[in-house]
Amino acid sequence: MRIAELSRRTGVPVPRIKYYIREGLVDHGERTQFNQATYDEQHVKRIKLLRALVSIGGLSIAETRAVLERLDQPQPSIDSVLGLAMPSSDPSRPARDDEHGQTAAALLEALRERRGWRRIDHDNAAARAFVEAAATMYDLGLERLLDELDVYAGAAERVAVADLGMVGQLGDPAEILENAVVGTVLGEIVLGSLRRLAHADASGRQFPDAERRSGLS
Amino acid sequence: MRIAELSRRTGVPVPRIKYYIREGLVDHGERTQFNQATYDEQHVKRIKLLRALVSIGGLSIAETRAVLERLDQPQPSIDSVLGLAMPSSDPSRPARDDEHGQTAAALLEALRERRGWRRIDHDNAAARAFVEAAATMYDLGLERLLDELDVYAGAAERVAVADLGMVGQLGDPAEILENAVVGTVLGEIVLGSLRRLAHADASGRQFPDAERRSGLS
Repeated sequence: MRIAELSRRTGVPVPRIKYYIREGLVDHGERTQFNQATYDEQHVKRIKLLRALVSIGGLSIAETRAVLERLDQPQPSIDSVLGLAMPSSDPSRPARDDEHGQTAAALLEALRERRGWRRIDHDNAAARAFVEAAATMYDLGLERLLDELDVYAGAAERVAVADLGMVGQLGDPAEILENAVVGTVLGEIVLGSLRRLAHADASGRQFPDAERRSGLS
Repeated sequence: MRIAELSRRTGVPVPRIKYYIREGLVDHGERTQFNQATYDEQHVKRIKLLRALVSIGGLSIAETRAVLERLDQPQPSIDSVLGLAMPSSDPSRPARDDEHGQTAAALLEALRERRGWRRIDHDNAAARAFVEAAATMYDLGLERLLDELDVYAGAAERVAVADLGMVGQLGDPAEILENAVVGTVLGEIVLGSLRRLAHADASGRQFPDAERRSGLS
């Protein structure tokens, strides 16, 4: 197919597809005569995945490239791919090592011991994102937001076990990885948006004034 | 204090503070002689909040402005502020109304009925983010990722009830709102990062090969 058809099939505008090709995230199509290129189903699949990770999942181009390079390796490990697919963590930003950063890291370590989680590499993207968010709560004097951390951890565990159970039913390693990457990135949006919808529901009962003002009651 | 001290106290570089001032997100400091400005504790507090929402929470400047404008109103409603504090939702992007968008919206509606949540305004940011992420899973043929949606919803409910319980202990409406905004935005990062750490733990047991390769066992 031509690039216009590729755009129609994927919902990604032609200039954006050309940008992905220039950045090496998508293979050049096959050159035909008249210097035109044709694309196939593999291109459709790849561009849909890019759209999911970049436009919806919020990964940067650099983060997406790192994830795709690992996915394209002959035997990528799940951990190595997932460690890269962490949106809001900017690897160029130094890890927090000031007082609040250390307090947040100690909080995570104590949580890990309480939950019996295996040892956490504090340099990994998820641990860094946790420490950064928790340290920022301390910066703002809002550390009470961490009082219910065990409720968060219990919820995270239940979701993680369900996720792994689903992925574990798959046989093909490449399929497992694609599901794991998309499930991690988009699943985070699903979980976050359901939390906000559950907030709206619980808040309508706890703060009926807010509900009346919003016109939803 | 001078702007250099403001930068030191908040950890935000001087050019970034000047940018926030130009954008109207932070008040001009008080002008002294020699055309210099001085800043006070209110500026420190505001800039720390901006840093939390923008740098850590991933809100855009436009989204942050909308949240702060509501926070600065005499009687902001909780719903109206929280509806704005939804990172990965780009309000300039049209809502999905194609086949997969409609399937995802129907899925959310069925979930709402099963959980007994109050009526969902499908135009709100959380509902749009859900529909977009779920529709993208359908686009990729990975809709099995939604098989465990009730586990996600149950986890979201438990966290939301804990969040509201914590915020409900506060008396001052302005304090409630600041906690609600920061707790929603940063709490989402806390929950997402704990899910990834719980994945790593569960995956180490389910896929011992991946664990060995990552050197964490």
